[in-house]
Amino acid sequence: MAALDLKEYLKEKKKLVDKFLDDYLPKADVHPKTLHEAMRYSLFAGGKRVRPILCIASCEAVGGDIDTVLPVASAIELIHTYSLIHDDLPAMDNDDYRRGRLTNHKMYGEAIAILAGDALLTMAFDMLADHKLNSRLDSDSLLSIIKTLASASGSAGMVGGQAADIQASGKEVNLPEVEYIHIHKTGALIRASVCIGAIAGAGSKGERPFAPTLDALTRYGECIGLAFQIADDVLDIEGSRDEIGKDVGSDIAKEKVTYPSVIGISESKNLSKELIGKAIEAISTLGEKAEPLREIARYIIERKS
Amino acid sequence: MAALDLKEYLKEKKKLVDKFLDDYLPKADVHPKTLHEAMRYSLFAGGKRVRPILCIASCEAVGGDIDTVLPVASAIELIHTYSLIHDDLPAMDNDDYRRGRLTNHKMYGEAIAILAGDALLTMAFDMLADHKLNSRLDSDSLLSIIKTLASASGSAGMVGGQAADIQASGKEVNLPEVEYIHIHKTGALIRASVCIGAIAGAGSKGERPFAPTLDALTRYGECIGLAFQIADDVLDIEGSRDEIGKDVGSDIAKEKVTYPSVIGISESKNLSKELIGKAIEAISTLGEKAEPLREIARYIIERKS
Repeated sequence: MAALDLKEYLKEKKKLVDKFLDDYLPKADVHPKTLHEAMRYSLFAGGKRVRPILCIASCEAVGGDIDTVLPVASAIELIHTYSLIHDDLPAMDNDDYRRGRLTNHKMYGEAIAILAGDALLTMAFDMLADHKLNSRLDSDSLLSIIKTLASASGSAGMVGGQAADIQASGKEVNLPEVEYIHIHKTGALIRASVCIGAIAGAGSKGERPFAPTLDALTRYGECIGLAFQIADDVLDIEGSRDEIGKDVGSDIAKEKVTYPSVIGISESKNLSKELIGKAIEAISTLGEKAEPLREIARYIIERKS
Repeated sequence: MAALDLKEYLKEKKKLVDKFLDDYLPKADVHPKTLHEAMRYSLFAGGKRVRPILCIASCEAVGGDIDTVLPVASAIELIHTYSLIHDDLPAMDNDDYRRGRLTNHKMYGEAIAILAGDALLTMAFDMLADHKLNSRLDSDSLLSIIKTLASASGSAGMVGGQAADIQASGKEVNLPEVEYIHIHKTGALIRASVCIGAIAGAGSKGERPFAPTLDALTRYGECIGLAFQIADDVLDIEGSRDEIGKDVGSDIAKEKVTYPSVIGISESKNLSKELIGKAIEAISTLGEKAEPLREIARYIIERKS
């Protein structure tokens, strides 16, 4: 097999996810128009689709095909987008810009931004419970996917991490607390994306995931999830405004809890590299089909935005 | 069969729902504590559990049993509670009190209130996708329930109605628009509660709902859903502060779109009575097991809060 062109791989998968979501979402002229416009505004704001792509790559790593997993992978992006809209609100991180564009509430007002987030979150489950949309997956696999996504997104996952983050801002925190925040706020959804890909891949063959394989992919997802957020913390300090689409040093200005603020920038870089090594090691038995997962892991700490 | 004691019926079912939710929700000392405390604060704020009770009554009307439907019915209350927390936010209706107590954001701040709502919404789907919790229901029934709930709650349902309501406030609106708002903002979740009860009732016997019965119950749910919101509009004008737990006339003060503001109070009362008649007629073939549904319909326009 020729060496994987990761840039091409990411571009191609992103295009598929974008097209799927564009076809699925109500158009901006469907009543109530402003709500649908606001949902589309943030969903098509240039996101890299990291989570859906991880889900697709994980599905392919266990021998599943992309047509089976595409709706499921795309649903995860709805959850990610809703979380960004709500995180940016004045009561939360109070950000005016994201990826170089005005945030949802700066465009549509706070009320519509809150509702657009609520609607995207709800739509993710609407998509996943849709038999026609997911005709290649049996009901048990779909339920298992919904459970995995909901658990990773709620108070024991992403929302829990966000709540802990909000409450820790401006306070002195220790390493276990910043680890808790990062593992939940960012890590849980990334880990779930990988697990869901494995469930969909097995489900497409009428099977449940092979337990050791699911364990390996779960471990991979955990490691890259944490590495991803640590790399983000580092980028916030070392990146340029053009690269990260918002002001450099905004975490420091907001007194956010970050790895560099707790263990220093050099130690943070070492840790994220170490985690990527562990992630790649975890899936060492998965063979060539898992090569995109390995390349994505390396990309996470090398990316510029 | 002895005449149904509706007050006793409602009290008994509410107790079961309250107990189920109390057992299910993470305790307020589970990290992140404030988030879980905030979720519990609004969930146990004295709600009447109208939607879960409708769901249970509908399940029993088609011959299902309460043990099967209780987790499913309780999940609906999580959706209802999240919608109240978000509706009360300063950017939305900006209410300081609900049911005579401080609203969630007045107690915990806006950030935690937004997150508590997000977490409750997510938890509803976590509960529904839980095989162990719903061991009496097959996977197809559960998926159908999740689809029904998500569709009723999202941009084509409750959230869509709320967005239209926010945008109509302070403007002159016509009858079709106020009808759209009420049918979506309040009606969709009430209708879904009734449909979900029917799906769970059939599912507990390993069946899909009998189409004419589901149609009849859907029609019943539509009629009482709209009647419920019209009765609420009337209560906002004619109730006392003690009865409704918030200031009388708050809809008028906020220039909210209501039926009385469009067709007058007397016509509104006639319409809600007419809708209740239609609801009861729709389920005329369902026999004695549907008696609680008929009594609940009558109660909707006679209630004082």
